[in-house]
Amino acid sequence: MRARDLGIPLGSGTPGPYNAITDVPGVRVGHTTLIQGDGPLIVGKGPVRTGVTVILPHEGFIWREPVFAGAHRLNGNGELTGLEWIRESGWLTSPIALTSTHSVGVVRDALIAVEVEQRGAAQNFFRLPVVGETWDGRLNDANGQHVRAEHVRQAVANAKGGAVAEGNVGGGTGMICHGFKGGIGTASRVIAKDAGGFTVGVLVQANYGRRSRFRVDGVPVGEVLNQDVIPLPGKPAASEQGAGSIIVIVGTDAPLLPTQCTRLAQRAGLGIARMGGVGENTSGDLFLAFATGNRRLPGDDLGERGPVSIPVRMLSNAYINPLFDAVIEATEEAILNALLAAETMTGRDGITAYRLDPAQLVDVMRQYGRL
Amino acid sequence: MRARDLGIPLGSGTPGPYNAITDVPGVRVGHTTLIQGDGPLIVGKGPVRTGVTVILPHEGFIWREPVFAGAHRLNGNGELTGLEWIRESGWLTSPIALTSTHSVGVVRDALIAVEVEQRGAAQNFFRLPVVGETWDGRLNDANGQHVRAEHVRQAVANAKGGAVAEGNVGGGTGMICHGFKGGIGTASRVIAKDAGGFTVGVLVQANYGRRSRFRVDGVPVGEVLNQDVIPLPGKPAASEQGAGSIIVIVGTDAPLLPTQCTRLAQRAGLGIARMGGVGENTSGDLFLAFATGNRRLPGDDLGERGPVSIPVRMLSNAYINPLFDAVIEATEEAILNALLAAETMTGRDGITAYRLDPAQLVDVMRQYGRL
Amino acid sequence: MRARDLGIPLGSGTPGPYNAITDVPGVRVGHTTLIQGDGPLIVGKGPVRTGVTVILPHEGFIWREPVFAGAHRLNGNGELTGLEWIRESGWLTSPIALTSTHSVGVVRDALIAVEVEQRGAAQNFFRLPVVGETWDGRLNDANGQHVRAEHVRQAVANAKGGAVAEGNVGGGTGMICHGFKGGIGTASRVIAKDAGGFTVGVLVQANYGRRSRFRVDGVPVGEVLNQDVIPLPGKPAASEQGAGSIIVIVGTDAPLLPTQCTRLAQRAGLGIARMGGVGENTSGDLFLAFATGNRRLPGDDLGERGPVSIPVRMLSNAYINPLFDAVIEATEEAILNALLAAETMTGRDGITAYRLDPAQLVDVMRQYGRL
Amino acid sequence: MRARDLGIPLGSGTPGPYNAITDVPGVRVGHTTLIQGDGPLIVGKGPVRTGVTVILPHEGFIWREPVFAGAHRLNGNGELTGLEWIRESGWLTSPIALTSTHSVGVVRDALIAVEVEQRGAAQNFFRLPVVGETWDGRLNDANGQHVRAEHVRQAVANAKGGAVAEGNVGGGTGMICHGFKGGIGTASRVIAKDAGGFTVGVLVQANYGRRSRFRVDGVPVGEVLNQDVIPLPGKPAASEQGAGSIIVIVGTDAPLLPTQCTRLAQRAGLGIARMGGVGENTSGDLFLAFATGNRRLPGDDLGERGPVSIPVRMLSNAYINPLFDAVIEATEEAILNALLAAETMTGRDGITAYRLDPAQLVDVMRQYGRL
Repeated sequence: MRARDLGIPLGSGTPGPYNAITDVPGVRVGHTTLIQGDGPLIVGKGPVRTGVTVILPHEGFIWREPVFAGAHRLNGNGELTGLEWIRESGWLTSPIALTSTHSVGVVRDALIAVEVEQRGAAQNFFRLPVVGETWDGRLNDANGQHVRAEHVRQAVANAKGGAVAEGNVGGGTGMICHGFKGGIGTASRVIAKDAGGFTVGVLVQANYGRRSRFRVDGVPVGEVLNQDVIPLPGKPAASEQGAGSIIVIVGTDAPLLPTQCTRLAQRAGLGIARMGGVGENTSGDLFLAFATGNRRLPGDDLGERGPVSIPVRMLSNAYINPLFDAVIEATEEAILNALLAAETMTGRDGITAYRLDPAQLVDVMRQYGRL
Repeated sequence: MRARDLGIPLGSGTPGPYNAITDVPGVRVGHTTLIQGDGPLIVGKGPVRTGVTVILPHEGFIWREPVFAGAHRLNGNGELTGLEWIRESGWLTSPIALTSTHSVGVVRDALIAVEVEQRGAAQNFFRLPVVGETWDGRLNDANGQHVRAEHVRQAVANAKGGAVAEGNVGGGTGMICHGFKGGIGTASRVIAKDAGGFTVGVLVQANYGRRSRFRVDGVPVGEVLNQDVIPLPGKPAASEQGAGSIIVIVGTDAPLLPTQCTRLAQRAGLGIARMGGVGENTSGDLFLAFATGNRRLPGDDLGERGPVSIPVRMLSNAYINPLFDAVIEATEEAILNALLAAETMTGRDGITAYRLDPAQLVDVMRQYGRL
Repeated sequence: MRARDLGIPLGSGTPGPYNAITDVPGVRVGHTTLIQGDGPLIVGKGPVRTGVTVILPHEGFIWREPVFAGAHRLNGNGELTGLEWIRESGWLTSPIALTSTHSVGVVRDALIAVEVEQRGAAQNFFRLPVVGETWDGRLNDANGQHVRAEHVRQAVANAKGGAVAEGNVGGGTGMICHGFKGGIGTASRVIAKDAGGFTVGVLVQANYGRRSRFRVDGVPVGEVLNQDVIPLPGKPAASEQGAGSIIVIVGTDAPLLPTQCTRLAQRAGLGIARMGGVGENTSGDLFLAFATGNRRLPGDDLGERGPVSIPVRMLSNAYINPLFDAVIEATEEAILNALLAAETMTGRDGITAYRLDPAQLVDVMRQYGRL
Repeated sequence: MRARDLGIPLGSGTPGPYNAITDVPGVRVGHTTLIQGDGPLIVGKGPVRTGVTVILPHEGFIWREPVFAGAHRLNGNGELTGLEWIRESGWLTSPIALTSTHSVGVVRDALIAVEVEQRGAAQNFFRLPVVGETWDGRLNDANGQHVRAEHVRQAVANAKGGAVAEGNVGGGTGMICHGFKGGIGTASRVIAKDAGGFTVGVLVQANYGRRSRFRVDGVPVGEVLNQDVIPLPGKPAASEQGAGSIIVIVGTDAPLLPTQCTRLAQRAGLGIARMGGVGENTSGDLFLAFATGNRRLPGDDLGERGPVSIPVRMLSNAYINPLFDAVIEATEEAILNALLAAETMTGRDGITAYRLDPAQLVDVMRQYGRL
């Protein structure tokens, strides 16, 4: 059940065939989902409600063939490793992984280990992996750090194009969003032919937001489906503080330069704003946009030089507004897709995060003149 | 006629007595409005539809007694002079003036001249005035550069607290917003007593946005009141490109550090997003937030040293979310106030920008289950 | 008399034919120098020791044909208008003008007026001119704001390639650097053929620094040629505070993307560091780098669209270090050239800024094992 | 053997008692050094030349009691986790750890595990540890990822004030700097009493730079002690590319606000420039400055609120230049101390990095009129 299945389109754009980040040619997504145990929290034992999601930006070997990228911070109470090189060079030189806050390190080092294994003996390289996080400690034994290198290896191996599993999967397994069960969501938009016909895809790990501010296409759903209608997980006061975060990954096959990727990245926050997010103080709202419209960029490996300069293409800025619109819309829809795909989950200490019920959502939309 | 008079509150917060940036104690606003001539454009002659607005951050002498401040850029196709020192030092050391794009220079230099006059003979200082702009060339003879130093002097002299004139006044005189007549707007929010009881005020010079994306409190007003219902000014195609900009000035009496001001500044963009702005390519969306909760900061004058360190107060970050909410809401309401206060205006070459009709707006809001 | 005439090369690179920013093909520089009156300061009367310098990045019409650019702030107590659009778009769409702090505005607006005159009737554009400054108020009646629009028009008209006048000319007329008479200076480097053979040019308006920290190629010249040997201008205490600023403009014909221009811009500060600058608190140290290696970029004019994407070239990052080295060296040499070209000048209230005496400099260099 | 023991002072300031970052009251440093095996590289076996260094910013519990901080990037080909929250909030809420590039992750997660152990059962927190790196793969089996959580635990346990071990220790064990053996170095400066009497300390993990550009106090040491005099490690061509990085940590007890910390952080790069660094393309030059002059800042733990605002002190900007000078000088001296303390080391595949010989250095300094 996705937003569009309910007749909630979010914006006027046209999604790609899978309405997913994988509509961008070459982009692959893989999840490892870890769900184990129930009952009271015992650090190191569980319950476990976590995982890791990996995005591969193109069908080649991203470590050796970067793509242009840019990033934006709406609120910085979070981690997205590798940002300094992205900002400096405008290059994404790593797969992108999403996981639990306290497992970022193991995932980061494991991405390097995977490359070492894939490449065999060659040693003359150093890597700066890109790993983001949101905090699943309301449901998961976050301090138990249950993600292991093998789970990263699995997620990389699982990565594929086509339909993307959403909700309680991968890095999104234990997440909470606007007081509902959150997680992974995705959506895409195809730009009009005469504006280039590019695809813009978005994938979110959604763990942010207060219930009271939650909106869908401008409708104040969170006011109607308030905590008396659908309970909040754990202590309401804590939930209403807006603890949580959202990572947004934007991919496109448009030929964007790094500065243009950075501009797209900032627009992800405008989509969050429309859903009711404000970049709360305890939220880590970090956005990364990459563009595969330029390929064959020379890699970073030490000692490799190649030609002095290379040809690339640049989208004319006169055509960038439709991409901005697409990022905003697709971010909104990816968040809603995450909420609709996520099933009600009970985690540590019996805390339950309830799903956003589709039927109730449809009722509220109707009540406000939509559908 | 303001948003609240129509029963459209925008958010859940409580405005201050004037629902204006002047609710922040000490903040004063002054306008000089220049409207002259009609008919075809003759560069240097007119028609003139422009002006200048000045905001004084406190009742003292801002040049000699700075306040903390921070800035954010949503889209940089605009100018806000003085930003480098604000970013470097976290200090606002200048009045803030808003005007037409091609008159930023004269306003900037005139602010210095005004200080020179006020201070008399003293020479050992240099100033970095803060002047922002949006482009009024659709209605105004912008290239005629009709703003003069004397108009700046008048606006400073006019500056006062209390109710603030909105719409076709000051720097906002010739502006267009979402294809309606735009201009100056303002609003405020008072934070709950137990969160500090601070006031957050916003003033916008609104000249941005496409009609089709215009929303009020989530209701797709621009889709209903489209160009067939209320015409766009000039050629529709050009208008729909989203040419234009918005400057947002946020003031508060909360004791914010510069980093915290910067965080508030970014939230102005979230308010714009909720109204339907996307930071279009040709838009200059620059936001400045200042905080008067710390006073007696030592000024910049050369050769003055004073004590090695000074006491200041810092808002605990645990209390900053309500200020974020307030900035978002007040930005939305300030934009709507600008639209509602602006009267239909015919400018150069007979181009007419129509107001957003309050009765029609109320109808649309009702149609979507509001009011 | 320039640094190289004294046998002081600063670094190991090779200068271009003019050892000037004009070695970058198409770059032109024009000055208007204003020197008038003597004796006590009377605001508005004089003495006048100021001017304006204009840099045109290519032989075409920069307003309509931008080039890629990037900027960096070492210390932000200064102004360089137009930076927000440069940062956002990576485009330089304006001539670059340098002048006195309190005359930035008139120069900015005049650059627009010059374009309006050149283009005649067309109205559908808005401009964000790039104007930098340093403060000449120690010698000049800065508050008198003696620069007028006609002086800008002259500087644009004067702009030409070839040898560039240095020292007490244009925007540098009244400047002071490390307690010596400062001003405009320039230098260039040609990259090795097998690294692309590009030219890197630098132009500075040098008004920064304390005497005691002044170094030339690592030699502590300022300690030897201290204020007992060559007096400081005005009160020593004030001079030692490091009041002042430096604007550095870097140009190159390498095919740099905006992110790469930004990287070059930051390296200008490393050259300043080697000369003894620290980005003092009262200093406005703003750097702009542009690259003409990509031309025919589509302009900003409203309503113009052209093709969806355009071909550009990108320097491979593996070849960027020589450009970094060149920026550092050329910045050092441009500063030294400014000091050597500047003649001793007496300004307002009889304050005298003494030149850095070439013979004395050569003596110190010898004393420390150079030359 | 340190720089000052050779009579090379680097600048005019006065060091603290240990001439180390630990001169800042409360700052503690701990190392774990891993040296094991010889001969050809076998990934996962060795040889091992690596480690981890931990800096605790004050004697309290940094996780629960943050201090103000700021950061700067000279060149971003590196990692320093946790930067987004430092930039957003101006708070350092973590110990600082330095290690090998490919071991950042394990160190990051281990810092969280250490806190979990120290705090016992409490679960309601999330952490964003600060871990920096430089690449030791020329000597070390970097891809073997030999740093383990227990090594982090040891380094934290080892942390103490007083003299700091330098050279081939901790995170610096396998580092190379300007083609000499590099590593950890530190230095400090005490500001004059009438400017506050504050201490500024610097610690570097130095792994950057080309031999040919190496300078000491302006003397071109690298030109004299070139690769024919003291060999480069491994293939000269590769070494001359400037592969490598430098992390600089600045601590002070001055009452700096976050914006002021950020300004100090940028000055570290000016010290590097004076030593001959240019922020080469393959270098990760990331700088972090923290200030303990404000304590009792409320921590980040979820659900803790405390008072609405808190008193802090701010250094008047008129007194910040001496701190800028101190950062530059102490960075230079810390780098030289790292080089002088580091012993010649042979690592993987028999590659040898030679120390900077003190006697030869003294000879060169004399030759250029110093000492």
